[in-house]
Amino acid sequence: MRKVIVQKFGGTSVADTEKIKNVAKTVIREKNNGNDVVVVVSAMGHTTDHLVKMAHDINPNPSSREMDMLLSTGECVSIALLTMAIQAQGHKAVSFNASQIGILTENVHSKARIVDIKTEKLKKNLDEGNIIVVAGFQGVTEDGEITTLGRGGSDTSAVALAAALNAERCDIYTDVEGVYTTDPRVVPNASRLDIVSYEEMLELAHAGANVLHPRSVETAKQYSVPLRVRSSFKLDNMGTLIVGVEQMEINKPVTGVAADSSQVRIVVCEVPDTPGEAATLFTCLAKENVSVDMIIQSYARKESKTNDIAFTVTKEDLPKTLEVLEVVKKKLNAGDIKIDEDISKVSIIGAGMIDRPGIASTMFQTLADAGINIKMISTSEIKISCLINKEDDTKAVKALHDVFQLGCDEVAEVKGTLPDV
Amino acid sequence: MRKVIVQKFGGTSVADTEKIKNVAKTVIREKNNGNDVVVVVSAMGHTTDHLVKMAHDINPNPSSREMDMLLSTGECVSIALLTMAIQAQGHKAVSFNASQIGILTENVHSKARIVDIKTEKLKKNLDEGNIIVVAGFQGVTEDGEITTLGRGGSDTSAVALAAALNAERCDIYTDVEGVYTTDPRVVPNASRLDIVSYEEMLELAHAGANVLHPRSVETAKQYSVPLRVRSSFKLDNMGTLIVGVEQMEINKPVTGVAADSSQVRIVVCEVPDTPGEAATLFTCLAKENVSVDMIIQSYARKESKTNDIAFTVTKEDLPKTLEVLEVVKKKLNAGDIKIDEDISKVSIIGAGMIDRPGIASTMFQTLADAGINIKMISTSEIKISCLINKEDDTKAVKALHDVFQLGCDEVAEVKGTLPDV
Repeated sequence: MRKVIVQKFGGTSVADTEKIKNVAKTVIREKNNGNDVVVVVSAMGHTTDHLVKMAHDINPNPSSREMDMLLSTGECVSIALLTMAIQAQGHKAVSFNASQIGILTENVHSKARIVDIKTEKLKKNLDEGNIIVVAGFQGVTEDGEITTLGRGGSDTSAVALAAALNAERCDIYTDVEGVYTTDPRVVPNASRLDIVSYEEMLELAHAGANVLHPRSVETAKQYSVPLRVRSSFKLDNMGTLIVGVEQMEINKPVTGVAADSSQVRIVVCEVPDTPGEAATLFTCLAKENVSVDMIIQSYARKESKTNDIAFTVTKEDLPKTLEVLEVVKKKLNAGDIKIDEDISKVSIIGAGMIDRPGIASTMFQTLADAGINIKMISTSEIKISCLINKEDDTKAVKALHDVFQLGCDEVAEVKGTLPDV
Repeated sequence: MRKVIVQKFGGTSVADTEKIKNVAKTVIREKNNGNDVVVVVSAMGHTTDHLVKMAHDINPNPSSREMDMLLSTGECVSIALLTMAIQAQGHKAVSFNASQIGILTENVHSKARIVDIKTEKLKKNLDEGNIIVVAGFQGVTEDGEITTLGRGGSDTSAVALAAALNAERCDIYTDVEGVYTTDPRVVPNASRLDIVSYEEMLELAHAGANVLHPRSVETAKQYSVPLRVRSSFKLDNMGTLIVGVEQMEINKPVTGVAADSSQVRIVVCEVPDTPGEAATLFTCLAKENVSVDMIIQSYARKESKTNDIAFTVTKEDLPKTLEVLEVVKKKLNAGDIKIDEDISKVSIIGAGMIDRPGIASTMFQTLADAGINIKMISTSEIKISCLINKEDDTKAVKALHDVFQLGCDEVAEVKGTLPDV
């Protein structure tokens, strides 16, 4: 029984015809290992940006259906060219867009979720000896409408295909060499992790280490698909394997440190302290599809019987959030709304911190020793996050990386770009 | 009952975002006339050339399946952008690729023929008040394989949609103002024809007046779809209407003059004069999909019992033709093969020449008076073609245009490019 390997190459890996020829070599190398290979590709380099620019030239507010029609073309170009490149090197290959295979999604444009993948056509073509090249980022509804999967879409396509085909592994080729203990651009002696759990990777991703989109990691976790993040350019480097925590031996309490400055803190002052007020606030935000990250409600002030409610949202969602708050503020009879954009969330992540009570206090003490003020704190089983001033975040990451002994002796070779999605 | 108008815009009409906005205006103008509108568009400007170049960088001999996957993306970009442009101007619109509608073709890549078009989705969307924007040039097989229709494909898509929807008219918008009595770049006082029959248009097209691809005219004739060729830029000019000959009043014996220098003459010398030899030759060419145009077989020379067989093929088909001839020559025990590339076929076309015997002799005399040697002659009911030296073709066209009184008093305003397909 042959094993199926799913490979995913991002836009920088297929940015021009020479790079596409190189990707073909990497694909064939895996096929020559005796495996069946399914390849998922993104749009070439800046194709998507170019298409978005044309769309906005024409219509400042294009419909999401037509944006999906437009953007899905980028991947269709890549799959045909990569297939031609594989064929030029003497191997059987065939390309399919999402509609042809049946990568079924919900009927939602611009950020649809995959609900099912038909495997009949894929299996038939693999059995015939073909390397299969699939357009990432796109899906199709039961009615034949073209959808896209949103940020990180191609990673998600690859993982979902690997799950559907019961693949041995899903290799995400990118221009970084794997997952690091922290951003190597900030901490030069950051170590590459050989192995990390889905749970840690999810927290790392949410905490700002955007090697992989959280959705793809969640899907991998759900279907137990081993994921490998590896370099398109250094094929001998095996990158980072991402698996279930039960498959790992845990040595250190903390696996990684991450900073995320994409959020903004909002404080709604003087919310009357009656039951259900916080629920009203966050229900209204949820209805508008605003994801709230950290939330703190201060103790009610006895004299005024009001609370201050602080929370964070992404900068992208700020305008929508303010719109909602204008309405909610009146409804709740709340006070001022304060916005703080110069913040950063610093997190330590590690499956090993469960039942080791000293970790949080070490983190707080380390930040205090570095003279960094903590504005908010949130914790999960395997993560502790502190909101701090943005200007302090590099200092905080370095101090935490040191105190938890995450560095290695070598200095990582760092490329200037992060992988696209 | 609302009428359906199908409009087709070629690549030069949608070459950039500004032009796409203009096309949207033209589309809306027709919608505002109270008609249901279905628009067919080609790929933007040089998109197809760019895609072909990338393909050839990667694979000098790309598979036709993958070329169809690749090239079909060009039209998918145009339809999304045009739809956004129509929406920006406040009208309901929706785009569909060929797979979504079900423009079913034979299972042949790079030059498939349309076998059926599903109209359910189109009618439903028209009933909902949408302007429908459809990707030209592409189709889909019963198995979901993407095909393309070859040269002139978008014209054919438009006509086939008009036939399927029983449309009032199919308007082909282009950068010429209509069909002329001859190429206005050659004869400045060429007249625009207000009306021309399908049959004449077919002969004009085959004779080198490449305003419309013959296949689209054949389809229009088959389903009696009135076609109008008109300018994208001069909307008040009604262009040329193409209808059945029975709907026309015929005044002149000759409607137009055309020259075609895309062919090459081949002479196979000394083919033994035994039955079936010519059949062998042309069957072998047909098997390789080479279309032969003019054919002349000389009288058998008594002394040698051999014939010379002369015929013309397009320059594009020359390499394939020579390959076939190398094999056939041995099989037939024929003599040398001579090739003449410096030829041109000059034709006069007119439904009115039926039963007017003087027309052919006027043509031959006119060429003789101009000192032009005729190398081959072929005739149909409504066309007489003479093969001449290429260097004489402008002179020939001018002389014939004059003698059949096709000119007008004005000098046509001519754009330098011919419409793409």
